[in-house]
Amino acid sequence: MALVDQHSGLFTDHYELTMAQGFFLSGKQNTPARFDYFFRKTPFKGSYVIFAGLHNLLDMLERYSFDREACEFLKSRGFNTKFVDYLSNFKFAGNVSSVREGEIIFPLEPALSVSGNIIECQLIESMLLNILNFESLIATKSSRIRHAAGDKKFIDFGLRRGQGTGSIQASRAAVIGGAAGTSNMLAAFHYNLESTGTMAHSWIQSFQDELTAFREFAANFPSRCILLVDTYDTLKTGVPNAITVAKEMEKRGEKMSGIRLDSGDLAYLSKHTRQMLDEAGLQYVKIVASNQLDEYVIRSLKEQNSPIDLYGVGTNLITGRDDAALDGVYKLVYSDGIPRMKISDNLEKMILPGKKKIYRFKDNQGMFHADAVCLEDDQQPDMIYHPARPEKHGSTLNLYVEEIVEQVMKDGKTLMKQQDPYQIAQYVRERLQMLPDEHKRFEFPHIYKLGISKNLMDLRSSIIEGINTGL
Amino acid sequence: MALVDQHSGLFTDHYELTMAQGFFLSGKQNTPARFDYFFRKTPFKGSYVIFAGLHNLLDMLERYSFDREACEFLKSRGFNTKFVDYLSNFKFAGNVSSVREGEIIFPLEPALSVSGNIIECQLIESMLLNILNFESLIATKSSRIRHAAGDKKFIDFGLRRGQGTGSIQASRAAVIGGAAGTSNMLAAFHYNLESTGTMAHSWIQSFQDELTAFREFAANFPSRCILLVDTYDTLKTGVPNAITVAKEMEKRGEKMSGIRLDSGDLAYLSKHTRQMLDEAGLQYVKIVASNQLDEYVIRSLKEQNSPIDLYGVGTNLITGRDDAALDGVYKLVYSDGIPRMKISDNLEKMILPGKKKIYRFKDNQGMFHADAVCLEDDQQPDMIYHPARPEKHGSTLNLYVEEIVEQVMKDGKTLMKQQDPYQIAQYVRERLQMLPDEHKRFEFPHIYKLGISKNLMDLRSSIIEGINTGL
Repeated sequence: MALVDQHSGLFTDHYELTMAQGFFLSGKQNTPARFDYFFRKTPFKGSYVIFAGLHNLLDMLERYSFDREACEFLKSRGFNTKFVDYLSNFKFAGNVSSVREGEIIFPLEPALSVSGNIIECQLIESMLLNILNFESLIATKSSRIRHAAGDKKFIDFGLRRGQGTGSIQASRAAVIGGAAGTSNMLAAFHYNLESTGTMAHSWIQSFQDELTAFREFAANFPSRCILLVDTYDTLKTGVPNAITVAKEMEKRGEKMSGIRLDSGDLAYLSKHTRQMLDEAGLQYVKIVASNQLDEYVIRSLKEQNSPIDLYGVGTNLITGRDDAALDGVYKLVYSDGIPRMKISDNLEKMILPGKKKIYRFKDNQGMFHADAVCLEDDQQPDMIYHPARPEKHGSTLNLYVEEIVEQVMKDGKTLMKQQDPYQIAQYVRERLQMLPDEHKRFEFPHIYKLGISKNLMDLRSSIIEGINTGL
Repeated sequence: MALVDQHSGLFTDHYELTMAQGFFLSGKQNTPARFDYFFRKTPFKGSYVIFAGLHNLLDMLERYSFDREACEFLKSRGFNTKFVDYLSNFKFAGNVSSVREGEIIFPLEPALSVSGNIIECQLIESMLLNILNFESLIATKSSRIRHAAGDKKFIDFGLRRGQGTGSIQASRAAVIGGAAGTSNMLAAFHYNLESTGTMAHSWIQSFQDELTAFREFAANFPSRCILLVDTYDTLKTGVPNAITVAKEMEKRGEKMSGIRLDSGDLAYLSKHTRQMLDEAGLQYVKIVASNQLDEYVIRSLKEQNSPIDLYGVGTNLITGRDDAALDGVYKLVYSDGIPRMKISDNLEKMILPGKKKIYRFKDNQGMFHADAVCLEDDQQPDMIYHPARPEKHGSTLNLYVEEIVEQVMKDGKTLMKQQDPYQIAQYVRERLQMLPDEHKRFEFPHIYKLGISKNLMDLRSSIIEGINTGL
């Protein structure tokens, strides 16, 4: 799907257009450049991020253009006529290298790089950050909920609390991170996601009584009948009425699928509900739970042995609460034949210059051990160095290695076959199995080792020295 | 703008379609219904919400339909053929009453109501909640930043950290809440917002040195030259180089607009920068600041007398951090001639039944004093009651009163003239001036009085009694 309408070129920040005009008027439209995408701080106090959004990004890069209305708008806002004429024929024709969608990534490593002329690289910055930051945030949150839910499934129920139309992308990212499906039909349509949903309280309220509402629903949906039991009183009326209807269904040769709890103490209610269902011989009727769930609540419910079969997760998943944003940035690392970097007043805002690649080292069990960011021309390094503290370094001998970045777009054309979100989810599962448990812990997870090569360290030092001495 | 593509009918939750099919098959397609939109908990530990999203909601209600592809998708997902045929001709033809966009609203009061047949009212639930919850959240956050910024302006810089395409709606909501403009060009285009933006670090880095980069920018944009001064070292190189260029501009009869600080301690840096600029006779050069700002940081900067003229606010505004969602709900309050309500296991999830209206009472200074939710047929009440504790009640004598809900859509057609976001922002400013300061405080604000009429209280009691006694 097109994330935005036909005016896609405007899905950017004003300053990207200002700079692009500046580059254009300064005769730099053919200056080669390279930008890296990376983040600095893991969300949710975790140790990793699930990289997501690549599909939507590549699709938008192929569509990115300035139609007539967009061009007239830019002229009306004071942009230079010759520059706007240039934009009217603009197509992104650059190259993109990236880790696979669904890859586990860590702070500071350049998960994605864009190269092309400096104008095309610059213009797409805001769109790229918007897509990758958000979809990666939600996929990461979803993977944490997946981790807490263990052998149980969970579904994205978040549309009503999502941040506007971004919810559609979020549902896809939720599936990438491990959700079994979504309630959002537009996301299900565009990304071919499983969808599910039965009834709200309004269904119950619209009938004269709860039992009638349940019966009517069962008559209409015998093969997917999940009854919401908390409209009036969960244990006094909701569950007993559901049992009555389930027994009536049995007489017709039908089986009720489940009941849903949506308020109250879910541990207490699920245990009593399970007992009541079991005593009625309804062991097959599943319990679905929703209401302000997140990875912590689900973990707690499981620790209490709550007999919940399926979780519906809304607000906290769809918005990535409590973080709401991944801090990914897109920085110039190379232009006009020269490696570049910014030195800020904040030390932690420093970046890694030049054209780079990433090696991932694994131990002999196949478990992830460390990543190394190296210069493109580097051989596989035997020794890697802490990016801020070179006195900390470690050998990579006796480790297995893979390169995790590959070219995914050439001259503006996507090279990779688009993957189904469930295929990407399968990749996430496989990769998370290779990440040692201590990195997946919710409380103070072990920080994953990220090193840089000697050559990259030396390049960075020489650039800093050059800037400080005014060279 | 259309928030979603031509498959707008699918911008809903699966369960709305399941229920709609159930209503359809149960012969309820002409059953009249009324749903209320309200929220329970104010975000940001504040006392109020700025109601926003009405424009986009009404626009989407007029567009809401199921095209051929959407219908085929629904059939493929097992929906009933006759029901899908019904959807293929579906148009929302209901009525909407609402407070004005930009109105200040409080917990529990039905700010917007939808009436129509139960299918049309039900289908639009998820879309309505998605739009109103998100845009109101952001307008509210923005109004808090506006409050902190006092006599200074601030701009939405959030696109890169926004939650996907929802960012476009968020920029509009930010302006409604008080932002002077946005960096997001697509939002500026669709909603006619002021846009602004100059340069990123990549502009500086792409030139051989900072001074050259500044000179080149000044040459290209003499009338809107704002230089980013923190790429290498703010006070040692950035500001001195900016001063050099400003003096060169003066010789050409030009005036530099400003410099931008984007890292480091903004209080410290802005004071030193101001001093350096002033000593160079550049009193007219403004200081723009950005980097993880929110209402608290801006308040602190102002308390420290930081000489900042304009704030760029990104992540925390565009995502409504630290809340990320408003908990607004949409509940059936009337159907088939009968007032309805849900009684949940959580007392705070109780709702107000029936067709209602809202009175706002003001004191003789024109300041808001209390709101009263009454039944549609109620006279203006002399006494209002706490919604949960009837022993708490108060007289409304000697207060001025206005009704704040009006019909905005009739038979699926929008009645009101669409308002410019800046006109709505003006309304927000006027209304916030009528809200006493103690309700605008960031820490433990005074809770605004919300009462209900005696008739509404009695209706609710009789429904609860009826449910509890099984009537």
